[in-house]
Amino acid sequence: MPSDRSPRDIAVLGAGVAGLTVALELLKLGERVSIIDSRIGAGASNVAAGMLAPASEANFGETILTEMMLEASIYWEPFHLGLEEISKLSVDYRTSGTLVVAADQGDMADLERSASYLTGVGMDVRELRRSEVRDVEPLLGSDLAGVFKVVGDHQVHNRHLIAALTRAFQNLGGNWINGLVENIAERENGIELRLSIEQSDLNSAHVPSGATTKDPLYFDSCLIASGAWSATICDLIGAESVSRNLMPVKGQILRIRAEQHYGPPEHVIRGSVNGRHVYLVPRLDGEVVVGATMEEVGFDSGQRIGAISDMLEDATRLVPSVREAEFRESSVGFRPGTSDNLPVLGRLTTRIWAHFGHFRHGILLSPLTARYTAAAIVGHEVPPWFVSCSPERFATGVNEG
Amino acid sequence: MPSDRSPRDIAVLGAGVAGLTVALELLKLGERVSIIDSRIGAGASNVAAGMLAPASEANFGETILTEMMLEASIYWEPFHLGLEEISKLSVDYRTSGTLVVAADQGDMADLERSASYLTGVGMDVRELRRSEVRDVEPLLGSDLAGVFKVVGDHQVHNRHLIAALTRAFQNLGGNWINGLVENIAERENGIELRLSIEQSDLNSAHVPSGATTKDPLYFDSCLIASGAWSATICDLIGAESVSRNLMPVKGQILRIRAEQHYGPPEHVIRGSVNGRHVYLVPRLDGEVVVGATMEEVGFDSGQRIGAISDMLEDATRLVPSVREAEFRESSVGFRPGTSDNLPVLGRLTTRIWAHFGHFRHGILLSPLTARYTAAAIVGHEVPPWFVSCSPERFATGVNEG
Repeated sequence: MPSDRSPRDIAVLGAGVAGLTVALELLKLGERVSIIDSRIGAGASNVAAGMLAPASEANFGETILTEMMLEASIYWEPFHLGLEEISKLSVDYRTSGTLVVAADQGDMADLERSASYLTGVGMDVRELRRSEVRDVEPLLGSDLAGVFKVVGDHQVHNRHLIAALTRAFQNLGGNWINGLVENIAERENGIELRLSIEQSDLNSAHVPSGATTKDPLYFDSCLIASGAWSATICDLIGAESVSRNLMPVKGQILRIRAEQHYGPPEHVIRGSVNGRHVYLVPRLDGEVVVGATMEEVGFDSGQRIGAISDMLEDATRLVPSVREAEFRESSVGFRPGTSDNLPVLGRLTTRIWAHFGHFRHGILLSPLTARYTAAAIVGHEVPPWFVSCSPERFATGVNEG
Repeated sequence: MPSDRSPRDIAVLGAGVAGLTVALELLKLGERVSIIDSRIGAGASNVAAGMLAPASEANFGETILTEMMLEASIYWEPFHLGLEEISKLSVDYRTSGTLVVAADQGDMADLERSASYLTGVGMDVRELRRSEVRDVEPLLGSDLAGVFKVVGDHQVHNRHLIAALTRAFQNLGGNWINGLVENIAERENGIELRLSIEQSDLNSAHVPSGATTKDPLYFDSCLIASGAWSATICDLIGAESVSRNLMPVKGQILRIRAEQHYGPPEHVIRGSVNGRHVYLVPRLDGEVVVGATMEEVGFDSGQRIGAISDMLEDATRLVPSVREAEFRESSVGFRPGTSDNLPVLGRLTTRIWAHFGHFRHGILLSPLTARYTAAAIVGHEVPPWFVSCSPERFATGVNEG
């Protein structure tokens, strides 16, 4: 639905799933869009498990977030079809649902509370009888305290999603700029960006012909979509009230392959083992993602042995055949956490917009939030939850430190 | 001690520690030596922990092997000094000794038997009092059943060793041929080798100028030093009695980094945890090698999750601060096992020699066995244990079929 006004030049800072989805929406609305980053999908997007789980991820009391997640989950259906149409690439969207599993009776008490909350918000959650469990998911251990089936949880392959978004962005005429923002200044007639671009990248950086690494670039508007690194850019424009409500939340995950012997489980499995949470997300290609820690330790990228050991032990407790699977990868990501767990969406200054802070829900929420961030930029209407995500809440809100 | 006869052209098949050490000895004896392999130190040598442990590795009843290991351990002292002199590279030779640790009383019974055997063969083994343990190695867990200190166990950094051997080989004028043996034939006047050399490697392969990938190469003698892959080459020359007594013994190991917080332990730590064996080998650079499984599963290179999980659990039981260390690498090697655990050293045919089958002891034994394999090739005297390692034992011995 391009309008009849002339298109604006918009810079999207960040080539993760958040930046890519919003860039795509802006292209669809007829804007000229450049994505600026030194690597594509290299942050949290690269490590995400790709669960689209409004249900099992929902937390008590997070009413707005739950509403967003439920709406985002529904929106994923048309979104992935549209994306695959534009990109001609599959994102491995799967709808086999989630099993939520309690290892012992203490874990079971937690799970029952969670299940009744989810039922209350309209989710289809049902405890399986012991006799059903073996039919539904034969790979589950036989000594578990309880298993619930959650209908409506989906999943997508995070790395295939990045590939499809990248291709779609190119197919719709988006522009890549291979660099990192060093300075950002709002001038009367636009945004001035100074980038650090490796001299060796200058040719591939798509900057204006003849540019050097020192020349600034100009845009009509700019959108910060840099995930956990958005705080640094907020500081560049003096938005400290926002940046101090952002924090990286480290997650360690493992990727294993289970095609030999027993194969991967059919369902996404989320479990509680002695109060510790673990999930197993099987991919169509035989890979299983096992995760994830939640650590507020800054940008410490160490892959702690204790975390790996616990995840393997807990995953094995739920699915004993994990022992026979093969190790493939251990990695670390930094979720863009916020002090109230809501993303930060909306205007920061006249020409600079926020689009970050999706925390643990970036893959699930991004298509929906991208749609309305793009809508807001071109002056279309936005829903009430979008207004609740405004960066203004930190300037005056109760979260203010 | 080059002799006054003219040097021979000798091909060493295999650029692991076994091949490199024997090639070096042959160069020192005045021969012209070519090493043929597609990669340097890429097999078991690359994965080895580098323990030089005649003591803690010794097994009951393996009299000849124990004698070789004790002699090899003593020989390492002059060997590493000579190697570092020629290569100008350090191999991180360390002599801080080994602690052998039992987790529970069952493990302790095993350990006491082992300790009295080692004392019997002349090793210096002593149980530490509980009050001593904390001084000697503060990182050990506090709930262990017993700790023995073994003096005389040393260690070396396997990858630095490969680098030093490679450099020394070059410094002494050795020749690299970058390829893999496809066929080997003994002619009246020499050995004819046909190699598969990637066309792209032809320039760097040091084959005669103008050679194509199809031309055979000729040598006076040939030495098989291909570790677990030696069986394939034995089959090419009809030495099935040897090849069927060789088998790859898979080992999974982990490399972790412990410099943060607690640092690595001071000693090599070998432990028995519920009957499972585990070791931790600290390097000078803060790396700790944790290993290792022993699996007779052919060349299956899968990194099994169960093995990783067990090694981490057992290592943590012995040294709890392992939980705070960082994961670096999970890898798999194939030890060249033999049916009687002795290496295979000596003449296979008139011009083809065996130098493989060092099993778990390749780093420890290689300098010593290389010395005498080279001696045998030039007609010098060899000790009785060397004769015991002859491939002829498989043709008529009790191990046969």
